[in-house]
Order: sequence, then structure tokens, then C-alpha cells
Amino acid sequence: MNDILDRQALWNISYGLYVVSSVSGQKTNGQIVNSVIQVSADPPSIAVSINKNNLTHEYIQESGVLAVSVLEEETPMNLIGLFGFKSGRDVDKMSQVSCRDGQTGCPVVIDSSLCFFEGKVAGSVDCGTHTIFVAEVVGAQVIKEGTPLTYAYYRNVMKGKASKNAPTYKGDTGLQDKPEDKKMEGGMKKYVCNVCGYIYDPEVGDSEGNIEAGTSFEDLPDSWTCPVCGASKDEFSPEE
Amino acid sequence: MNDILDRQALWNISYGLYVVSSVSGQKTNGQIVNSVIQVSADPPSIAVSINKNNLTHEYIQESGVLAVSVLEEETPMNLIGLFGFKSGRDVDKMSQVSCRDGQTGCPVVIDSSLCFFEGKVAGSVDCGTHTIFVAEVVGAQVIKEGTPLTYAYYRNVMKGKASKNAPTYKGDTGLQDKPEDKKMEGGMKKYVCNVCGYIYDPEVGDSEGNIEAGTSFEDLPDSWTCPVCGASKDEFSPEE
Repeated sequence: MNDILDRQALWNISYGLYVVSSVSGQKTNGQIVNSVIQVSADPPSIAVSINKNNLTHEYIQESGVLAVSVLEEETPMNLIGLFGFKSGRDVDKMSQVSCRDGQTGCPVVIDSSLCFFEGKVAGSVDCGTHTIFVAEVVGAQVIKEGTPLTYAYYRNVMKGKASKNAPTYKGDTGLQDKPEDKKMEGGMKKYVCNVCGYIYDPEVGDSEGNIEAGTSFEDLPDSWTCPVCGASKDEFSPEE
Repeated sequence: MNDILDRQALWNISYGLYVVSSVSGQKTNGQIVNSVIQVSADPPSIAVSINKNNLTHEYIQESGVLAVSVLEEETPMNLIGLFGFKSGRDVDKMSQVSCRDGQTGCPVVIDSSLCFFEGKVAGSVDCGTHTIFVAEVVGAQVIKEGTPLTYAYYRNVMKGKASKNAPTYKGDTGLQDKPEDKKMEGGMKKYVCNVCGYIYDPEVGDSEGNIEAGTSFEDLPDSWTCPVCGASKDEFSPEE
């Protein structure tokens, strides 16, 4: 067999969507993760893969504890935007949602969550850009009945995108940084997505959404959505 | 917060269903796994959790290579039965399905598979009953378009059960071994499930399916299914 490495094959792996949170002293943070699995039944243990550049990675290493909240299918885009597209270095994420203090000292996200579990790190393995943390589950609670949000539902039904730090990053969010390099000209204002931080620049337009360069934000059709996170037009604010 | 460990919370983790295969010399084997995740984008790496008692675990340790086939939603129960409920110590599984030799030397299951990827083990972490193997993906191919089989679909639509070696084992397959201890009496014949090996014993009945002790296999309703793997009545053969 010839050597073939078609990365699309990896897109068929099925995932849920979770908020993984941790703590460091008085500071707390959390982020969206899709790569959570149970790895042992007795004692119950789970594994999560976290990008080394993320603040949550730093906190898990420092405290040795983490919590996982399983998101429901009805999770609003702005919660995914907050935990998936913003950094805890810029925003105090936990102050913007309902949280509990877990028994490990870890903050636990309750908003839009069907259940949560928290654990103590029992091992880890270096995977290049990411670390897998293995945690023995020491606490777990069901909050309510419901359908867990899957990554497939988020992509196919909610039309959401992947953060560039996701292990499954599909390379389709490259527009995120480009418009910031452009100067505003001709008096048309740039607009910022409140969900993921993407900036709509009228001088650039949005080729993915078939929006020609020179189209003002006001002239975008109401059906237009953020090319990065899928947020609707009313999630945008004028750039300051 | 009081210490609470409700394992049902862990049942909300979303998974796909895969055949993970490996090789040792001339011998090959594979097994059903639900715990597969991509853990890094560059180089592409995946992680799988495998029970230490399984033959596939032994082969992965010996050869340092593994392949993952992503099963389609239409996967028949007997393929899941073969790879999920039978041991490679008893059956030459790979001889019963369409396979390819992968570029790592690993056999790759093609039947009922949307795609496959294979890799070289780059790290591992001991998780008690299981080992997580991290593999750098060196080959990957899409076989066909389709919907990946999820663990939720397998349980909720196909009414399948978990093998007792699964990390997510729910403890509902305890009937699997019990009937073998019973003697056949009164002339009523025992029947064996071709999918998972469960034995229906008329002297015991099937409490999960509301079948009273003393009910012959012939008198079971046509809607009755195997309490272990969900196979239909016509998947059963008289015990020899």
C-alpha cells in the first residue's frame, strides 16, 4: 500500500463538547474541549487533551485538579464563544456563568451542563502541541436529563467552527487574524464579533460568505453569520 | 459541597465506535473500542484506551503499531459481536472480514468502515485496568462517505450492550456467564447467541426481558432480543 495520509479520515472521529475547568490559587479558568474519554472503570478515570498554550493547561499543571462539565445540545453560541474563543488571560470567564466550587477546589460550570465530574490528575503524557491529562474521578453529579451536545451537532447544525488550538483544528478559521492587518478606509466601520472576536472589515468582505470587498456591515444580509464561530449579525458591535 | 460520585454522570460522554487492530509476527487481532480521540493536530496524533486483559493490548505493546477503522452507522451487529464480544484467543477475527495490510504492517478492517488511520505508538500511560496508547498517525484514508456510528446510536437505536472489558462498562451484561453454570433439565434446549456468545437457558429465563423461568426458546416472542448484545432471536443456534 502506498503511503497516504488523508487528514479528512480523522474528521470521522466522534466527540462531545465539554468545558474543562481548573484553578490556580485564587484564579480560575475553563475552556471548551472535545477530546474527553473515560479510560478506566475502576477506579473511574478520564482523560482529556489540552493545548499547551492554553491557560487551563497551566492551571491543571499547577493545581493537579480539573473538572469537566458536559454541555447540553441547547448550549447557546455565546457560552461556546466565551469558553472556546476567548482566553482567560483577557477575560474572567467564570464570573460570567453559573459556577459551583467543586470538592477538589476546582470551579465547575453549571450553565448549559447536563452533569459534571471532577478529578485529580494521576498521570499525563506529552503529545507535542498537547498534553493528555489522566484524572481519577473523585466527584460526579448529574444536574439534569437531556441530550449531550456532540461536536457533529455543533458543526453541522449549529454551524460552529473549531478554535485554532483544538486538536481537531480544520484550518478553516484562518480569517480570524487577517482583517486586523487592514487599515479602515473610506469611512466604513469595522465590526467585532462578541462571541469569538472576529473582526468584519468592509474593505475585505467575507469570501467564505460570498460578501464582496467594499460591502459595509450595515449592507450585509440578515442571514449572514460570523465566518469563524457562526454567530448571527446581531452578535456584532462596532469596533472601538 | 459533599462528596458525591454518581457514575451516571460519566455516561453522558459522547463516543464513536471503532475497530482497533494490531499485529504480532504472523498473528493479527482487533477489537471494538469507543475511546478514540485526536490529541494533536501537528503531527496528527490519536489516543486510544485499551483494556490490559485484551489480546489487542498485547499485540500493540509487541509491535508498536495500531490501526483504527471508523465504523459506519449501518454496521451489522455480527461485526460488533465478532470484534466486541469474542476474544482473538478463541477466534481468528481478521479472517472473517475484509482486511487490508496497512503501511505499518498492521491489518486494517475495511468492512463497514468509513475510513481508517494507522499509527506508530509514541507514548503510553498506565490507567489501572487500561493503558492509553498515543500514536502518531502515519497513514489515513477515507473509504466512503457516510455517518459514523456513535456509541449513543449503538445503545439507544441498535440496543447494543457494553462488553465487560469496556472502560464505560455499565454492569448490565452480568447475565453473560450465569446460564453456563446451570444444567439443562426437562429436555428444553439451550440456545447460543451467534453474536456475543450469550446462552439462553430455559430453566433460567431472562428477567431483564420479563421472560419467566421455564420458557422454552421456541416460546420466546419474536420481538425478544439477546439481553447482552441486542441480537434478534434468529441470531441464535441450539447449543451443541
